[in-house]
Amino acid sequence: MAIQRSKITIVGAGFTGATTALMLAQKELGDVVLLDIPQLENPTKGKALDMLEAGPVQGYDSRIVGTSDYEEAADSDIVIITAGIARKPGMSRDDLVNTNAGIVQSVCEQIRRVAPESIVIILSNPVDAMTWAAYRTLGFPKNRVIGQSGVLDTARYCTFIAQELNVSVEDVRGFVLGGHGDDMVPLVRYSSVGGIPIDTLIEPDRIAEIVQRTRVGGGEIVGLLGNGSAYYAPAASLVQMAEAILKDKKRVLPVIALLEGEYGYRELFMGVPALLGGTGIERIFELELTAEEKAALDKSADSVRSVTAVLSSQ
Amino acid sequence: MAIQRSKITIVGAGFTGATTALMLAQKELGDVVLLDIPQLENPTKGKALDMLEAGPVQGYDSRIVGTSDYEEAADSDIVIITAGIARKPGMSRDDLVNTNAGIVQSVCEQIRRVAPESIVIILSNPVDAMTWAAYRTLGFPKNRVIGQSGVLDTARYCTFIAQELNVSVEDVRGFVLGGHGDDMVPLVRYSSVGGIPIDTLIEPDRIAEIVQRTRVGGGEIVGLLGNGSAYYAPAASLVQMAEAILKDKKRVLPVIALLEGEYGYRELFMGVPALLGGTGIERIFELELTAEEKAALDKSADSVRSVTAVLSSQ
Amino acid sequence: MAIQRSKITIVGAGFTGATTALMLAQKELGDVVLLDIPQLENPTKGKALDMLEAGPVQGYDSRIVGTSDYEEAADSDIVIITAGIARKPGMSRDDLVNTNAGIVQSVCEQIRRVAPESIVIILSNPVDAMTWAAYRTLGFPKNRVIGQSGVLDTARYCTFIAQELNVSVEDVRGFVLGGHGDDMVPLVRYSSVGGIPIDTLIEPDRIAEIVQRTRVGGGEIVGLLGNGSAYYAPAASLVQMAEAILKDKKRVLPVIALLEGEYGYRELFMGVPALLGGTGIERIFELELTAEEKAALDKSADSVRSVTAVLSSQ
Amino acid sequence: MAIQRSKITIVGAGFTGATTALMLAQKELGDVVLLDIPQLENPTKGKALDMLEAGPVQGYDSRIVGTSDYEEAADSDIVIITAGIARKPGMSRDDLVNTNAGIVQSVCEQIRRVAPESIVIILSNPVDAMTWAAYRTLGFPKNRVIGQSGVLDTARYCTFIAQELNVSVEDVRGFVLGGHGDDMVPLVRYSSVGGIPIDTLIEPDRIAEIVQRTRVGGGEIVGLLGNGSAYYAPAASLVQMAEAILKDKKRVLPVIALLEGEYGYRELFMGVPALLGGTGIERIFELELTAEEKAALDKSADSVRSVTAVLSSQ
Repeated sequence: MAIQRSKITIVGAGFTGATTALMLAQKELGDVVLLDIPQLENPTKGKALDMLEAGPVQGYDSRIVGTSDYEEAADSDIVIITAGIARKPGMSRDDLVNTNAGIVQSVCEQIRRVAPESIVIILSNPVDAMTWAAYRTLGFPKNRVIGQSGVLDTARYCTFIAQELNVSVEDVRGFVLGGHGDDMVPLVRYSSVGGIPIDTLIEPDRIAEIVQRTRVGGGEIVGLLGNGSAYYAPAASLVQMAEAILKDKKRVLPVIALLEGEYGYRELFMGVPALLGGTGIERIFELELTAEEKAALDKSADSVRSVTAVLSSQ
Repeated sequence: MAIQRSKITIVGAGFTGATTALMLAQKELGDVVLLDIPQLENPTKGKALDMLEAGPVQGYDSRIVGTSDYEEAADSDIVIITAGIARKPGMSRDDLVNTNAGIVQSVCEQIRRVAPESIVIILSNPVDAMTWAAYRTLGFPKNRVIGQSGVLDTARYCTFIAQELNVSVEDVRGFVLGGHGDDMVPLVRYSSVGGIPIDTLIEPDRIAEIVQRTRVGGGEIVGLLGNGSAYYAPAASLVQMAEAILKDKKRVLPVIALLEGEYGYRELFMGVPALLGGTGIERIFELELTAEEKAALDKSADSVRSVTAVLSSQ
Repeated sequence: MAIQRSKITIVGAGFTGATTALMLAQKELGDVVLLDIPQLENPTKGKALDMLEAGPVQGYDSRIVGTSDYEEAADSDIVIITAGIARKPGMSRDDLVNTNAGIVQSVCEQIRRVAPESIVIILSNPVDAMTWAAYRTLGFPKNRVIGQSGVLDTARYCTFIAQELNVSVEDVRGFVLGGHGDDMVPLVRYSSVGGIPIDTLIEPDRIAEIVQRTRVGGGEIVGLLGNGSAYYAPAASLVQMAEAILKDKKRVLPVIALLEGEYGYRELFMGVPALLGGTGIERIFELELTAEEKAALDKSADSVRSVTAVLSSQ
Repeated sequence: MAIQRSKITIVGAGFTGATTALMLAQKELGDVVLLDIPQLENPTKGKALDMLEAGPVQGYDSRIVGTSDYEEAADSDIVIITAGIARKPGMSRDDLVNTNAGIVQSVCEQIRRVAPESIVIILSNPVDAMTWAAYRTLGFPKNRVIGQSGVLDTARYCTFIAQELNVSVEDVRGFVLGGHGDDMVPLVRYSSVGGIPIDTLIEPDRIAEIVQRTRVGGGEIVGLLGNGSAYYAPAASLVQMAEAILKDKKRVLPVIALLEGEYGYRELFMGVPALLGGTGIERIFELELTAEEKAALDKSADSVRSVTAVLSSQ
């Protein structure tokens, strides 16, 4: 018998992809392939080598390879897709969707070929639609195609609550349903600090402000950076999902999953609480929602559908 | 300027004390003094040396000293008291209380002398009463005298829920109020898995069984071991509290604190949710309880009072 | 595809076995089966449950099972054997060897049956001979039968050097060849602190004392404890070896390996530097020795042979 | 008594500075102030916020603040200076030295004012000269002014050796003396794998290639990235030094220290093995060098002096 290291491929070696590679190595979750287009092969190799050279100091043994060759991704256990462009001034939403869908599609054609048994996690934007695009191209069973948004949204929400109360982030639990973006549905009544519901600790107006700040949390970072978008918290979120799968941890995390009747939706990839383990999405949890929450979720679903529709019309 | 390592003294080098020392060293939270009575000085030194020799392999640099000399505990930042005897067959509860109170008192007289600025965490049994005994002897402000029970009770409760649902323990949040023992009050409506209330995931009868198993969780281990009581989870609980203080993490944890009006009780040490930071207990959280929960908490408070009364009559 | 957790079985749930289980869980290296004889089933279950209940606090998700049923060990990736008795007053060395060889043999018959693809690490004493006994019974290829002694001996040696110089254990490198016990051969010229040879930092007499203290390091702990032997550093050593294999880390560690010509020895299990990876022992490193070192190693080999001879005569 | 978190300020919020902040937070070594010039205040705040939002997922509680206001750095325990420009095409070495010395000087005037008790670690380039510039401006005792180069150079050297032999980086020890750059002096005879000298494992020609690759290791990354220089391994190196100090670990690491007679040099900041603990540099280790090594070190010292001379002539 030979015990083998797991292999994780990250497609897209920008800030998020590279930071994801670092965090995977730090946790020694497996060997890491950082992959980008041929034009960026050298910078990709440079980032991978730089990370590898941090290994003796940080104490990790993960092999980290930078490449533009999909053969290096062969038989990956997990593939994380961060590829895609950012929306540029003057670009319509549909243009963004179509451009990134093209990128995701071409990536997934390669992944399907070289890593047909992999579990795929998508971050590319707009993520609900891109997860759909990936699913369509990969032809993998639905448990192996997963989008990331809720872990990040929840992380921001919890950060703001922890700051508000000056408590440890380890004790804050939040919960976000629905699509990524302005229509996400943070479930306030399921949010707590050390088990104590936040609505007994924070005034309603202040909670509303925190919820609103969470909704536009990505934009807040974009606005501050001036050039580019968040990558530390997104990378950490991807790594948490990958870890849940690679260690078969059975984590209960909000992820973008294909709904086939759950919550009354069909043929829709949207953020719901799910069980992440060694086979990917192992269960979707259906919550009882209030009428108000269901209405908010419906609105979010409509947003997701309208973006995904751009794809379907292709 | 010189940055100094923190110093943590553990009084009582039995299984719990020794395991606590190991876990503190593993986290490099500071230097560790493991202290027991002169008759046990050599075994105490042996355990400390054995742990120290694990350092090169586990990668920690904490100094670990075994001793029976309180001078070694001088200026400790934190003192953890695990000393005390276990209840023996034929021994009345009052005998146990008085014997252990005598031990705790004599320990605290030394601690007051050598480490007057320390924060003291008590595990000795029966813990609510022993925390009171420590407080009385130490004469420290109430924020610096803390009993452990709720972290352990909650850990057991969460373990059982995680097993029941086959989910990661990282996603289970539970909550236990009141005294340690059969009258503890697990707040089911504040328990959740990934934010999802457990009463939507587990049948009421099964929850009742889990609650009951939690109440007698210490006894379950005692029954299995045949000889002795739990020490891994108790040690881990002590270390979590020490870490919250040493890193000023502002954790929200259930701890035994002196109540002076909170929840309607006075002059009572009992388990409540509190904020643990660099000054010890920095805040007590008061929850709104249902009539049923308040009745259960009253019953628990009565139990605690009746045990503590044994002390007061001394 | 389904990613599966690794499975590690520990035979012998005494202090060393139980501490090993804890440290494996803390590193989330896989699920842990703690196995002992039927008469100790309940205490074994108690220790496993206690450890499991520390999981929510320490943040690990490993499943830990206590059992006396070898079926629970089925398909283990790694089996660690700590079973055996300690030498009792009046017991001859040969009696100890024969008693423990009987235990190891009966354990290995079960392991061969239920976990035929496993990699087996032996700690039972006298360890060089017991590794031979295990090899003979298991019938596994030599790369999958490994004894522990050098990691522990080196850890003690490095601890003493770090103490002598008041430096971090992370920067001390030592090196021990040969059999476990009084004849072990610490290679002083290969010992360094931050790369600096220790013989430029410590006086020869003092080094000699450190070497001697290392040789009798196990006895020092036995003498202090009064009852029982070391378990923290031994457990940590076993876990380092298991981690090297489970993560395919290609660590270079001193282990007890079957020599077939290396260093001029044949048919001998003795401590040598080896590469530990996903298939067990992947390479043995042969060092050029001085005449003096070779003589010391020969002496150590003779000791090992004389103990192993007790077995062969069975 | 109140236990307080340590405070680490990083001046320069570029890739290296930001990655350093992340790694400090991941280790919960204290609260982090990421500081850059007013024109970059918003991006600096954006990076800090993004990192903070990764906290709930990565499990760290460090406060991370982005700012351009030195008052936020008040009473820092450690200050890390990564500020400075990269050499641009057509820029002379002296221009680079003078520009960066101006930056370092203006930073240090502020640090002297707001954090007069801090320990300062310098990464700005050319680092030997910039450490001198910092020392001159700060007026701190020499133990509190430390340059980083050897940890990084050694990390690269060890990475290459680990790759060459396909062994764990945890078992490779290397050693680099002298100035950062082409004249650095890797001491091959002090390099080992699991204690085994590398010259018994690798052919001399191949070692020479590895040494040469180490010398130009920074340039290799620059060449690959095309735009910018390494930051993962440099950040990890800074964090290792900060951790050694903040935990008073007494690590033996190669650092840039003020030499006042050691190795025969005076008034020179250059890379030597030193003990890093709670007061900064606590000891410098003097190695006996061969004539060849001493000649190489002299050459390196000359290089450092010639760069530093540019400063002195100011």
